[in-house]
Amino acid sequence: MKCRVCRGPAVIDLPRHNANFCAAHFTKFCRDQVERAISEFDMLSPGDRVLVAVSGGKDSLAVWHLLRELGYEADGLHVHLGIGGYSSASARMARAHAEALGARLVEVDLREDYGFDVPTGAEAARRTPCSACGLSKRHVFDRAAVDGGYDALATGHNLDDEAAVLFGNVLRWQMDYLARQHPVLPARAGLPRKVKPLVRLGERETAAYCLVSGIDYLVEECPMSAGNKHLAYKAALNDLEVESPGTKANFYLSFLRQASPLLEPVGESGREGLGRCERCGAPSPSATCAFCRLRERAATAEPVTLRARPAPGAGPTTEDPT
Amino acid sequence: MKCRVCRGPAVIDLPRHNANFCAAHFTKFCRDQVERAISEFDMLSPGDRVLVAVSGGKDSLAVWHLLRELGYEADGLHVHLGIGGYSSASARMARAHAEALGARLVEVDLREDYGFDVPTGAEAARRTPCSACGLSKRHVFDRAAVDGGYDALATGHNLDDEAAVLFGNVLRWQMDYLARQHPVLPARAGLPRKVKPLVRLGERETAAYCLVSGIDYLVEECPMSAGNKHLAYKAALNDLEVESPGTKANFYLSFLRQASPLLEPVGESGREGLGRCERCGAPSPSATCAFCRLRERAATAEPVTLRARPAPGAGPTTEDPT
Repeated sequence: MKCRVCRGPAVIDLPRHNANFCAAHFTKFCRDQVERAISEFDMLSPGDRVLVAVSGGKDSLAVWHLLRELGYEADGLHVHLGIGGYSSASARMARAHAEALGARLVEVDLREDYGFDVPTGAEAARRTPCSACGLSKRHVFDRAAVDGGYDALATGHNLDDEAAVLFGNVLRWQMDYLARQHPVLPARAGLPRKVKPLVRLGERETAAYCLVSGIDYLVEECPMSAGNKHLAYKAALNDLEVESPGTKANFYLSFLRQASPLLEPVGESGREGLGRCERCGAPSPSATCAFCRLRERAATAEPVTLRARPAPGAGPTTEDPT
Repeated sequence: MKCRVCRGPAVIDLPRHNANFCAAHFTKFCRDQVERAISEFDMLSPGDRVLVAVSGGKDSLAVWHLLRELGYEADGLHVHLGIGGYSSASARMARAHAEALGARLVEVDLREDYGFDVPTGAEAARRTPCSACGLSKRHVFDRAAVDGGYDALATGHNLDDEAAVLFGNVLRWQMDYLARQHPVLPARAGLPRKVKPLVRLGERETAAYCLVSGIDYLVEECPMSAGNKHLAYKAALNDLEVESPGTKANFYLSFLRQASPLLEPVGESGREGLGRCERCGAPSPSATCAFCRLRERAATAEPVTLRARPAPGAGPTTEDPT
């Protein structure tokens, strides 16, 4: 197996590109794909200050690394979710990577700063853990990016994540979700521009990027993500990808090119009349935003304690990249 | 396991309807679903003369039976495709069902009437067998329905077929195909109204309908369909259906309700300027229609002979229902 570029020994094969690469040309391939995504979807301009949401998993560490390699001034933002040993290990990975990059890492602790953690919030609000977690992270990310004066908030969502989310939205034809599924969302009052620079790279590729770049990432899955339907959607798409390499990329990218433009009117109607939360000032369609409602319910709840988990081990990971 | 209606012993469970039925109430359930599809999508009016495309498989025999049960004047149309023993067995099933129904069966033989068969046509035109077969059947169906003065042409496409086709179209975001994917297509000059009355029934249900109604159908798969991508799409959707019953029905029916209306402009543009084939007079976007081009290439080709196949056996079937 030889590198397509230099004919040296290859370290990875990419069936959908019909190519093999050595370590050096694979990292160049990843940079090129990120640069292409940034340019194709007009995500960033040279010199932009970017805040990167960093979980400590492969995707978020890779996107942070890649954005800095491409010359962006990129700081990290890590949110402590309070999910037992998983969260402690996540924070260690994020800090170690910040040190290796010589980059600034902003840290927010849900329990210290907002009075609750994800397990407690999910139970108190009767949401699934993934729902309470996503809601909390979006709120903290948005606020940190706006308050910090960043030009954009970047997340590590990769091609597999986006294809699985698209598949879930398509299975239910949730037109409003479909209309909003785009790798760049423009800034609006109170909300930062949001970009997903990894949408042209699959999770096998972001994992390999970390490996060949010497980036130590948290391999363990979030212990609360079991049963998340996206895992089933990923599995279904992976089966099809094995039979026809390129299925996932074509599914996601041709959605953006061909279907997304038709959905613009649906998306526009959803953006009308966004007011402000009367408690925190965040943009919200209702008087009190969903995050403040979650926080209020969690504040009076008995804290939920997760049992300690074994140290992170090897194996495939499918955690939410943010 | 008891029938939801009469509490007698049930013969089938339908997880997506959270219901079990005895034989009598299951056949009533099937009739109700067909009646509901016909009414919801305005497929047929009482007294309509319908031509049913009959392959001899479970779906086409079931739809023919159900339409007659519902009081429609429904004749059958069987096309001999020349696919070895599979085609002979198909014809026998179609004829036996016509006799049982006391109904008229129109028969067309590709080899006798048009000078070629599917295996020869596919090889001569360098099409996949499923592509050459589908093209030929559409041409013959359209002509027979129009020449016979029928109000509509009905096919046995079931929910699994339509969901798999939709999934394939969505994976590539083929907007023109998506725009045309509807259970009823109106008549246009030279083309009959086309209806799919089984879109609310899955293939497990049409098979069960045949079993409890004493309809003997061809269980064998078409020997030329191996490798057809729709089999992989069906498998992926079936996996998701097991985890979340109703996934397939929701995917297909919410597409029709929510997405299909947005696609109308795409569909309209595809319908402009359809001329007539200068050889056969069929509607065609080009001077000679695709069927006449296929026929011309096949006419001078050496006939392809399929090896004899064993007699039809038991097992699940996934053949094209038309």
